[in-house]
Amino acid sequence: MLIEVKLTMSQSHNISERMFELTQKNSAVREMFEEGNRLAALYGRENVYDFSLGNPYFPAPEAVKTAISDILENEASTFVHGYMSNSGYADVRQAVADNINRRFGTGFAAGNVIMTVGAAGGLNVILKTLLNPGDEVLVLAPYFLEYGNYIANADGVLVVVPANTEDFQPDAKAVAAAVTSKTKAVIINNPNNPTGVIYSEDTIRKISEVLKQKQKEYGHAIYLLSDEPYRELAFDGAEVPWLTKYYRNTIVGYSWSKSLSLPGERIGYLLIPSEADDYELIYNAACIATRILGFVNAPSLIQRAVARCLDESTDIAAYDLNRRLLYSGLKKAGFECVYPQGAFYLWMKTPCDDRQFCAAAKKHNILVVPGASFSCPGYVRIAYCVGEDTIRGALPGFEELAEELIK
Amino acid sequence: MLIEVKLTMSQSHNISERMFELTQKNSAVREMFEEGNRLAALYGRENVYDFSLGNPYFPAPEAVKTAISDILENEASTFVHGYMSNSGYADVRQAVADNINRRFGTGFAAGNVIMTVGAAGGLNVILKTLLNPGDEVLVLAPYFLEYGNYIANADGVLVVVPANTEDFQPDAKAVAAAVTSKTKAVIINNPNNPTGVIYSEDTIRKISEVLKQKQKEYGHAIYLLSDEPYRELAFDGAEVPWLTKYYRNTIVGYSWSKSLSLPGERIGYLLIPSEADDYELIYNAACIATRILGFVNAPSLIQRAVARCLDESTDIAAYDLNRRLLYSGLKKAGFECVYPQGAFYLWMKTPCDDRQFCAAAKKHNILVVPGASFSCPGYVRIAYCVGEDTIRGALPGFEELAEELIK
Repeated sequence: MLIEVKLTMSQSHNISERMFELTQKNSAVREMFEEGNRLAALYGRENVYDFSLGNPYFPAPEAVKTAISDILENEASTFVHGYMSNSGYADVRQAVADNINRRFGTGFAAGNVIMTVGAAGGLNVILKTLLNPGDEVLVLAPYFLEYGNYIANADGVLVVVPANTEDFQPDAKAVAAAVTSKTKAVIINNPNNPTGVIYSEDTIRKISEVLKQKQKEYGHAIYLLSDEPYRELAFDGAEVPWLTKYYRNTIVGYSWSKSLSLPGERIGYLLIPSEADDYELIYNAACIATRILGFVNAPSLIQRAVARCLDESTDIAAYDLNRRLLYSGLKKAGFECVYPQGAFYLWMKTPCDDRQFCAAAKKHNILVVPGASFSCPGYVRIAYCVGEDTIRGALPGFEELAEELIK
Repeated sequence: MLIEVKLTMSQSHNISERMFELTQKNSAVREMFEEGNRLAALYGRENVYDFSLGNPYFPAPEAVKTAISDILENEASTFVHGYMSNSGYADVRQAVADNINRRFGTGFAAGNVIMTVGAAGGLNVILKTLLNPGDEVLVLAPYFLEYGNYIANADGVLVVVPANTEDFQPDAKAVAAAVTSKTKAVIINNPNNPTGVIYSEDTIRKISEVLKQKQKEYGHAIYLLSDEPYRELAFDGAEVPWLTKYYRNTIVGYSWSKSLSLPGERIGYLLIPSEADDYELIYNAACIATRILGFVNAPSLIQRAVARCLDESTDIAAYDLNRRLLYSGLKKAGFECVYPQGAFYLWMKTPCDDRQFCAAAKKHNILVVPGASFSCPGYVRIAYCVGEDTIRGALPGFEELAEELIK
């Protein structure tokens, strides 16, 4: 009887079964977004404190506008809006490499860079490039749940390394325990979404050591895919380790979504070091993957614009003010918080079940995302890429929540 | 012994086997591109007649530049460069729907449109949305070979309907013969790359009839995916049938790459009619596919720019001049050509093997793509999206080729 029902269900529509499943479980972040709109309609946008979305609050630097205007004025239309090689414009890739070299003392060339349709596009390209069906990819909880979809797109298998809830620095021993002969890659995200933690040099060294040993043990490469959209957002003068210095088989994925407030433009890069195993094959295959996945190339005009704005920055001081205001407010209210070092997220321990906390917060018109959405229940993510007034407006609500929920 | 060698080969690198294969067979078009650069270095760019690439020759209309400048001046940075829903800006989608409705007398709304990263991105999104592993997708030879990769990305099976070399109007009977119980979709491309033929209303009616019958026979939907980047490039006042009028389960994929000369910008749309089977599921799943494939959304600024340029056009009269010049020149030289009605391609029968013809043409510094690259040997594709001087310069070479090769 049950089987019959299932058969009927699966035959009752004409789309992919996997996509059908995805339509049935809407993402928690997306639900929050809709809830925010519902509450705003009821109470007015200014009375809803929406901390659910990682959407840059501050505008792109003026230099982006100047760059675009100048390019349109001075470069030929067929060049600026035309096809280029799938990897991107050679001069843009060279400018990106030069900028990395200046900042990190590395020696990359244009031939190490592939311009991508955002970091998400880059991750899909590199996973498509590397994975055979059944290959395993490690992610470190708490993690951006979308990685699971990217890995599945390339027929890979997601393996979650449990969180180290001590300080949210990933535990190298837990990474070691999760590696098998089928491990092809490990994705790390630093500064981290959702915790706001910066993985320390010590953490990076230990993970690198584990992977080097495991490569030897299994006789094949294990690639460290470093997803770095938040690299520029580091506070208190913290340094975000540049991973190719610690581990040869590192591939960096970057995006200007946060650093230049350009998330809608879908512009980023992949960096594939020449010293990585099979560098040349990976580079060529990643260019082909860019083409066949339908990206073809990163959007052209904005490629040329970011190349002129590599030393520009979003208003990091303003995010920093938000960070301090929110952290001190929540601590004062009595909440246990992970000290936020980077990105624009604060990771707070919930005094009750995290989904229950989110429901309770909603009654105060406060929207935050449950830790369960990052494979780490018992916490919430509070995105402080908002106006200062949103934080000030929400703090009384958080204080009431603390009174209600902290025993 | 052979097996041993193969095992060694497959273990000698660290990337995906499928991607490894693709790196080994470089595309013919890409080879041509490299050959063009080699010849240009030897003989000077002006003495190389490169008809191998479908890259728009004429600049984007001035209105695109004006639109971008105006948007940057008058719309907020966080809006213009920010995240929007995965389907694209609501006002842009509404403008696209309105434009289609005005031109084709249809009744679409913003909720029928998804903005995509070019037509290639759109095709990948809709194939991901529709296909279960093993589902078959029909393509009509000669066809754009990249379709095979897009179908494989979604674990589908490519089924090629043989060419009708009579007049290159697809034969509905051949389509009928290729449909099976596993057929999920049929891709058509009109005006056609590589033939330059416009599929007639009669052809469309006949194919629609076949698909309607087959849907009834197999009890599930068969979607007609209409890839239309060349829709605006129709000559002699020819009309390109608007397919949703003939077949309910049509999904249109469009791009402004050719019509506004913006191929590098990666901007297009998918149109999913409300009357299509499972419209709502398809639309929701396609938005999710846009997200998880890593596109996230079509590039934001250029979305807003094309919405202001929907009535603009590239220099069709100039392409038309090229078309007449090339067609009459080749006919005069004695070649058999399919009369080009649309797109910017001329499809010429070769007096010998098509690859041999391409090799012979190269000796005259003429680059064209063999029909084998479109699953239809015995022909070449000549892309006349070039300067008039390139055509005039190449015609003596074509005349010599005719003398050498036509018996």
